[in-house]
Amino acid sequence: MNGAEAVLRTLTSSGVSVCFANPGTSEMHTVAALDEVPGVRGVLCLFEGTATGAADGYGRMADRPAAVLVHLGPGLANGLANLHNARRARTPLLAIVGDHATYHKRFDAPLESDIEALAWTVSGWVRRCTRGADAGADVAEAVAAARAPPGQVATVILPADAAWSPGAEPAAAIPVRPRPPVPDETIDAVAAVLRSGERCVILLGGTGVRRPALAAASCAARATGAGLLAETFPARHERGAGIPPVERLAYLAELAAAQLDGTRHLILVGARAPASFFAYPGKPSSLVPDGCQVHVLAGPGDDIAGALAALADRTAPGGSPGGSPGAAPTPPQPERPALPDGDLTGQSAAAVIGALLPEHAIVCDEANTSGLALPAATAGAPPHDWLTLTGGAIGQGLPLAAGAALACPDRPVLALEADGSAMYTISALWTHAREQLDITTVIFSNRSYAILTMELERTGAPAAGPAARGLLDLSRPGLGFTALAEGMGVPASRAETAAEFAAQLRRALAEPGPHLIEALVPPFS
Amino acid sequence: MNGAEAVLRTLTSSGVSVCFANPGTSEMHTVAALDEVPGVRGVLCLFEGTATGAADGYGRMADRPAAVLVHLGPGLANGLANLHNARRARTPLLAIVGDHATYHKRFDAPLESDIEALAWTVSGWVRRCTRGADAGADVAEAVAAARAPPGQVATVILPADAAWSPGAEPAAAIPVRPRPPVPDETIDAVAAVLRSGERCVILLGGTGVRRPALAAASCAARATGAGLLAETFPARHERGAGIPPVERLAYLAELAAAQLDGTRHLILVGARAPASFFAYPGKPSSLVPDGCQVHVLAGPGDDIAGALAALADRTAPGGSPGGSPGAAPTPPQPERPALPDGDLTGQSAAAVIGALLPEHAIVCDEANTSGLALPAATAGAPPHDWLTLTGGAIGQGLPLAAGAALACPDRPVLALEADGSAMYTISALWTHAREQLDITTVIFSNRSYAILTMELERTGAPAAGPAARGLLDLSRPGLGFTALAEGMGVPASRAETAAEFAAQLRRALAEPGPHLIEALVPPFS
Repeated sequence: MNGAEAVLRTLTSSGVSVCFANPGTSEMHTVAALDEVPGVRGVLCLFEGTATGAADGYGRMADRPAAVLVHLGPGLANGLANLHNARRARTPLLAIVGDHATYHKRFDAPLESDIEALAWTVSGWVRRCTRGADAGADVAEAVAAARAPPGQVATVILPADAAWSPGAEPAAAIPVRPRPPVPDETIDAVAAVLRSGERCVILLGGTGVRRPALAAASCAARATGAGLLAETFPARHERGAGIPPVERLAYLAELAAAQLDGTRHLILVGARAPASFFAYPGKPSSLVPDGCQVHVLAGPGDDIAGALAALADRTAPGGSPGGSPGAAPTPPQPERPALPDGDLTGQSAAAVIGALLPEHAIVCDEANTSGLALPAATAGAPPHDWLTLTGGAIGQGLPLAAGAALACPDRPVLALEADGSAMYTISALWTHAREQLDITTVIFSNRSYAILTMELERTGAPAAGPAARGLLDLSRPGLGFTALAEGMGVPASRAETAAEFAAQLRRALAEPGPHLIEALVPPFS
Repeated sequence: MNGAEAVLRTLTSSGVSVCFANPGTSEMHTVAALDEVPGVRGVLCLFEGTATGAADGYGRMADRPAAVLVHLGPGLANGLANLHNARRARTPLLAIVGDHATYHKRFDAPLESDIEALAWTVSGWVRRCTRGADAGADVAEAVAAARAPPGQVATVILPADAAWSPGAEPAAAIPVRPRPPVPDETIDAVAAVLRSGERCVILLGGTGVRRPALAAASCAARATGAGLLAETFPARHERGAGIPPVERLAYLAELAAAQLDGTRHLILVGARAPASFFAYPGKPSSLVPDGCQVHVLAGPGDDIAGALAALADRTAPGGSPGGSPGAAPTPPQPERPALPDGDLTGQSAAAVIGALLPEHAIVCDEANTSGLALPAATAGAPPHDWLTLTGGAIGQGLPLAAGAALACPDRPVLALEADGSAMYTISALWTHAREQLDITTVIFSNRSYAILTMELERTGAPAAGPAARGLLDLSRPGLGFTALAEGMGVPASRAETAAEFAAQLRRALAEPGPHLIEALVPPFS
């Protein structure tokens, strides 16, 4: 068999069954091999940023990598922004970058560029396959690298002649290294800090905001009176009715500072020491309060759930396990909002979503300023997963939803999109339609880069004149998202009142397949 | 003044008057400064690939750089593919990449990444500005670097605190280094080769396919019986009635080999030794025939027009200048095609375009397989410029057209787009509408990645089964380009016959502002 077929057979043996692809000439043998290896499903994306964002969504939900197949340096370049988000999400993800044949590179043909330089900016592991006979082994190692806890982007550069050369063989899967347990002394030390009586906050990140970890963290916090927060942009936050609620650290440094005010001990569990998203003149970059000690219970690749379970045991009242008497009462479960009436705003739209969110929904949240009310409004909804913009590179939401829907075909997916962000990777809607994915996309159409009107002020820049305002404005011309969706085969509607939005969302959620709702909302509403 | 204002004032003094922008928080001071410096026009793009492609189109037509303003590593990443094309076009272009404040970088905030690594893959010159006081001087040097013949991408990384710090000053323009003349001995040697009686081909690239150079090259070729060819993908080819016609070297290696068959001397003038665009099993990468000697008259940064004029003088019959008697007759000017009737195909669409192309049009050609008949059909049209996909990174055409239209507001622009390529940067249509650019976009909708169905066979891959065919197919669902255009404010129509296409193209060219025509054509027609 040729290298391409060995690559695909190695993917199947390594548990990779989906390949989001935007191929070119140098990937033709890999494309042709898809017919030989039915265990790998090729999913066509019209832009590489859709392929990489989809692989991110898939990996976050499946906890195993999808592959992406892209075309040389420019193809990888187009996918980098969403690989950046995947890197920050620590998503297991395998990027296969087709390249010119090994002997062709010295001719510096038009598409030649430095693929390694691009790949290393987002990958924890990069290898150039040098011959077909190695292709299977290289891919097996790449998958193992991608899956190594906490997960990362691994990139294989596959020259065309390595793909087309015969004499290749698939490689066996390499066992995934388990998450190392956190040493007892570390758990004891953190338990002692929590029992010190000083103000403590446990900051959860990574898999610390998945259900079992959350339950244990909540026990430890209640037993000791510690505060409990989640990182600002979790990759995948399990939440909703029956799951201990945890507030996320605010995006705005001012609000985050208030959340952490007075904290003497900050305990990191799969999270990093908090820092401001951006710098602002005269404001500190670190969000760790003065005089606060930072402790690390577990790094992102450690056995976070195990460490939190052990911590909950150590801190249980009377030393006995579980939330026995003496612990603070379980925080009340938030209620679902009533369906609002009246104007459609970010606030009322959030209430509609909170009222209608179906059980086991996967929410891809790139609503930005239009989504400020969402966390509170949905806290009492049935259990669901909430996926956020981990790396700040906008254009993530629609692709992420595609990948999440393919990873979990039995679960409804809700993509909540700011209008400006949606336009970066709008062609992802075509993949929603092509694969008939059960995704409801809500575009919050406020016709501006609203967050930048706020940031302009926060950075202390001079008040915006007409030229600056023009660069933050999306109203000339207004974007017609229903037309855009229909041009890509996604049924669409437009809501201008809360009642219209509720009716349209209810219908979209009830019908299988993709839908889009353009929700006209004022900025900061 | 702050660093941002110094940057913009330096741009104006250096002759840079347009900035294609997709800014974020770290660029807010630069955005605000646009109101202080009216000499720089900010043009909003909804995606960085549009900004960089537009700057490429602008630079190719204006022969001076536009600036692009993008947001940190992910913003630059989104713009890389079209910067790759600009690099291959040798377009003068200034990329300004906003970054976190210098002191903020060590916190590894979510958007932090290796900007330099990305920038070097497409830039000939990269500098990180380290303080506001240097910002003006850094930008002046960057513009000079961008303009240094033959032109290149120059990148300035501008930290937010360099932009907001006071005490900055604009820098004076740095004079542009002129193109060095080609030494007499080189010209004499090439003239001797041309007069050798052996089969010679002059291969023109870069500014060698601009009007004065073409005229001189044509004289020299006619006088000596040499063949004359242009590189496959010129950045800007001046052509049409009254300009000596020159065939381009074919994209398909088989056809290019036929064009060069029997050549004993290949004379490069601003072009590179020809190589196959991709490698194919068992086929050579170099297109230089066996036994053919390669001579370089001028490199891309040399005084190409001057060298060709001198060569024309040296080779003129009797040693006298000009196309005096004795030279081969001027090749007959091709005629314009008649307006066709009947089915709309790539062929008939090309005839319509050849029949209707207005004088001084700028054609941005990303028609790919649907455009094979275009060069012949338009050779007799009134003088026009033809801009091609220099680096092979698709998604160039719509952005390129925006930049060309802004550089030449009095000239009609025709963007000829393959459907698959158009979808990479489809949001460029919004900028066409926003700026009311006089661009007529023709989408050749053949509902497939047709070129890949051909390449699949050429690479010797196994015949495509259903999985492979699915990855080359754009028909499920069909893309509705009129809906997409209208969703972004561009009036659109759809043509299914040659007559409809002619009527719609005539109307679109007659009306100012942007238009889009979806031309339904069969693949390879």
